[in-house]
Amino acid sequence: MFKKVPQIASKENISKIKRLREQALSVDHLVDGIFKGDKTALARAITLVESSAQEHLQKAEAIIEKCLSKKSHSVRIGITGVPGVGKSTFIEVFGKMLTEKGKKVAVLAVDPSSSLSKGSILGDKTRMQTLARDPNAFIRPSPAGDSLGGVAQKTREAMILCEAAGHDIILVETVGVGQSETAVHGMVDFFLLLKLAGSGDELQGIKRGIIEMADAIVINKADGPNEEQANWAKTEFTRALHLYPPKKNEWTPKVLTCSATENKGIIEIWQLIKDFVALTKQNGSFVDNRVRQRKNWFLQGVDEHLKRQFYSGQSSKSLLKKYLSMVEKGKMAPSHAIRKLFAEYRQ
Amino acid sequence: MFKKVPQIASKENISKIKRLREQALSVDHLVDGIFKGDKTALARAITLVESSAQEHLQKAEAIIEKCLSKKSHSVRIGITGVPGVGKSTFIEVFGKMLTEKGKKVAVLAVDPSSSLSKGSILGDKTRMQTLARDPNAFIRPSPAGDSLGGVAQKTREAMILCEAAGHDIILVETVGVGQSETAVHGMVDFFLLLKLAGSGDELQGIKRGIIEMADAIVINKADGPNEEQANWAKTEFTRALHLYPPKKNEWTPKVLTCSATENKGIIEIWQLIKDFVALTKQNGSFVDNRVRQRKNWFLQGVDEHLKRQFYSGQSSKSLLKKYLSMVEKGKMAPSHAIRKLFAEYRQ
Repeated sequence: MFKKVPQIASKENISKIKRLREQALSVDHLVDGIFKGDKTALARAITLVESSAQEHLQKAEAIIEKCLSKKSHSVRIGITGVPGVGKSTFIEVFGKMLTEKGKKVAVLAVDPSSSLSKGSILGDKTRMQTLARDPNAFIRPSPAGDSLGGVAQKTREAMILCEAAGHDIILVETVGVGQSETAVHGMVDFFLLLKLAGSGDELQGIKRGIIEMADAIVINKADGPNEEQANWAKTEFTRALHLYPPKKNEWTPKVLTCSATENKGIIEIWQLIKDFVALTKQNGSFVDNRVRQRKNWFLQGVDEHLKRQFYSGQSSKSLLKKYLSMVEKGKMAPSHAIRKLFAEYRQ
Repeated sequence: MFKKVPQIASKENISKIKRLREQALSVDHLVDGIFKGDKTALARAITLVESSAQEHLQKAEAIIEKCLSKKSHSVRIGITGVPGVGKSTFIEVFGKMLTEKGKKVAVLAVDPSSSLSKGSILGDKTRMQTLARDPNAFIRPSPAGDSLGGVAQKTREAMILCEAAGHDIILVETVGVGQSETAVHGMVDFFLLLKLAGSGDELQGIKRGIIEMADAIVINKADGPNEEQANWAKTEFTRALHLYPPKKNEWTPKVLTCSATENKGIIEIWQLIKDFVALTKQNGSFVDNRVRQRKNWFLQGVDEHLKRQFYSGQSSKSLLKKYLSMVEKGKMAPSHAIRKLFAEYRQ
């Protein structure tokens, strides 16, 4: 007997992929497939969107535009936590609970440290085997990219495609390298920080600024002998959250414990998120936040474009080097150096 | 009998100012005065540096350049706190203690909300009357400006001039409007947060991110019936500080109490700052921090210049408006809008 082949790699899917490859990747064909919830079409379209090849750009933009026009009532949930906290197991159990409730779940990731542009697909599939086989779940690893901005942009666009494919819960996972939590926080409705009850000094090890971003802190692995520590950590984190002023959206961040392996406390987390969505939709901050996120994404992109244009030039690079060195040595005031730099640059 | 005229407005000074005005404001003359510690020359030079008139630019830059070449062993201390916390009284008492120890003190300010470009000079002088009359103190109100970036830049430059004039302690006060604390934190060696023991819920009212910036939290007005509350607040803040991971410079932020009006706990604050300086000079982070600040100041300035150049144009403004509106309505993905914007802009 052979081991059961996961659905995604079934014979039927493989031949389907081949057929799609043989066809021209027509925009209408892909969008049609996405709207029907065809995971293969969705995956192909995301690949197009992630491509940096110039010839794919217009097709990608046309696909995104069409997908934007499709109404969605999705909830976007960001999930972060240090390696070892049990993110994969948590997402698998949490996702499974959602699909059992009839939800369609998409799992995306922002991992600027990943250089495994292809390998990590299999990696993620292995990590979340049960969810990967679920017809109502779609798992996509982090896009590769040189910059966090680029990686985050592609994930944002993949999210739009997943929503058009009918996925109403989008889970965006991040490993928390550098500023990646801020990037994920800027693209989701609800931000969940996974923690582990450990050595008793949990708060000390927490990354700066992250508590302020969290809508919920969930202490995982609250099972067996860890349970007491988890409850202790819950008290500590609750106190820490009280140190911050109330959020504008009127939501008070909460601390919960759970055990992903024992499937305990998982439904409570979903209930909490539903409370959050109900509150913020009612007071208008849910929509306000989405509009603000789109606006920021655009304005940040404009600034990045301006910088890229300038910093990629050969003359600007050498001018920057020259004046930066003078500034660092304290020989020239920065304002003076900037004026001279741009005067030379314009020549 | 007339009331004693403060030294700064003495007859001698007034005629000196007149003479200076009659002379051409020669760079060498001003720099010479600054190096001799002449407060009138210093004030005139700062006015030049703060001027936005094009004809003053080169003189100002020449003065700054010369002042940069003068060696200084200054300590730059940022002081923030909400209105009513007693900043002026604290600075007066703290400054006076320093001048009595033979230090030369300069008090600068970053207040982007101030539109009193002239009036506030007198305002500040009134607030710190004793210090203003002290020959070893120099008080300069916040420069006026449209943007925090502009105000902060001028204060940074004024700081260089004060240091060249022999002021070895620079106190930079900020009212904490918007991002002004971040701006001041980025130009000082030591950042002091003044707090008041009040209603018993001190931490709740604290501005986001500020605890992370503080090298010391000083609870002022710890006198009379307030003393108990102040000690309670000290415990609370100490605990809050422990929630943060250690700083790279190896400094552990401390909480102290003081009473500026009763002159209690003031020397202890100075001792703490001396400990900080000793530690960070020994481990190299003092100098590293200054180099990094200069570098950031330069790089931020380059980015600001790029943006200003772009955003001030008429065509870019209307393009931004057009595409931002499409993005906000969710009709176009930001990445697409950015590409179209710059394609149109280049035409």
